[in-house]
Amino acid sequence: MSPVRTPQAERTAAMRLRLMEATVECLVELGWSGTSTTVVSQRAGVSRGAQLHHFPTKQALVLAAVEHLAERRRETLTDAAAALPEHGRTRAVLDVLAAQFTSPVFFAALELWVAARTDPELREAVAPLERRMGRETHAHALHLLDVDEARGANRALVQATLDLLRGLGLAASLSDDTARRDVVLDAWALTLETQLERS
Amino acid sequence: MSPVRTPQAERTAAMRLRLMEATVECLVELGWSGTSTTVVSQRAGVSRGAQLHHFPTKQALVLAAVEHLAERRRETLTDAAAALPEHGRTRAVLDVLAAQFTSPVFFAALELWVAARTDPELREAVAPLERRMGRETHAHALHLLDVDEARGANRALVQATLDLLRGLGLAASLSDDTARRDVVLDAWALTLETQLERS
Repeated sequence: MSPVRTPQAERTAAMRLRLMEATVECLVELGWSGTSTTVVSQRAGVSRGAQLHHFPTKQALVLAAVEHLAERRRETLTDAAAALPEHGRTRAVLDVLAAQFTSPVFFAALELWVAARTDPELREAVAPLERRMGRETHAHALHLLDVDEARGANRALVQATLDLLRGLGLAASLSDDTARRDVVLDAWALTLETQLERS
Repeated sequence: MSPVRTPQAERTAAMRLRLMEATVECLVELGWSGTSTTVVSQRAGVSRGAQLHHFPTKQALVLAAVEHLAERRRETLTDAAAALPEHGRTRAVLDVLAAQFTSPVFFAALELWVAARTDPELREAVAPLERRMGRETHAHALHLLDVDEARGANRALVQATLDLLRGLGLAASLSDDTARRDVVLDAWALTLETQLERS
């Protein structure tokens, strides 16, 4: 059950949400260097004062926004898991996961990860978030593929699958890579079906 | 045989080289937004006038620098190919390729690709370079793995290998990922040995 919220708390939550969604839009459209708290406040229709109260720095805003999107992503994955076909399940799972790695969440996170690479303070703040997102995606992939990671090389194969998808996400950032990606994922689905050990 | 160069041409070539190498250093250490023609000129010990004469814009400088590094990378790959062991060749090839995707070339190119994602003019200039580098790396991987891409799913498996390595490169950008990468590449090598069709 959701907690009962006062109208004021509702308004605050809605404002925070608008700020976080505007931040992701800015990262996706304008990149890290084009994203500023001023641009985000304007886009979200939130006063500078209110924005500074909730998210005092660009770093706080971006970390909250990427974390928020990762949560929404979990819900999408749960819905997708319920809709997987029995026949061709592995290939369908790869499509569900690939959709995540070519979505706004991925491109927003990419901007954050790459900016963090050359900014030690930002990297310290980003590293725990990146590890948590990595662990969650790994657990989701295991669940969707319906495999026990203790068997054979399953753990490494699932990690390889996520690394492959990250690489495909990066390749999709410069041009439409859909046709090539489909061929690669067809081959990888067949490989996984042969190589994963099932009970 | 190298063309005979006048002392003046030698000095010019050396200066261009210093500018390109300083550019890559800047991209790797300071990222795209921290890289400017001023910082590069200072680091290379080249006057602003000379720098502007050879590379009139940051874009021209960065594109030339990444292209130059990609050329040097080809030489490294050729040397590595000569030194591959007969036993455990596939795993050794993955190490050679992974070294490229976790090297300064990769991080410099990553800064350029990500900046290009949100800058249409830069993207137009970067796209042909990115395609050429992609085709060359693919050809090198085929050569190193010693497979015919017309057979079975070889072509898609080699592409998947490069996408995997790109994903591993991105994962290595935030923290030391060596131990995990080794386990993933062990599993990938076994998979390739089973799945690649050889004559």
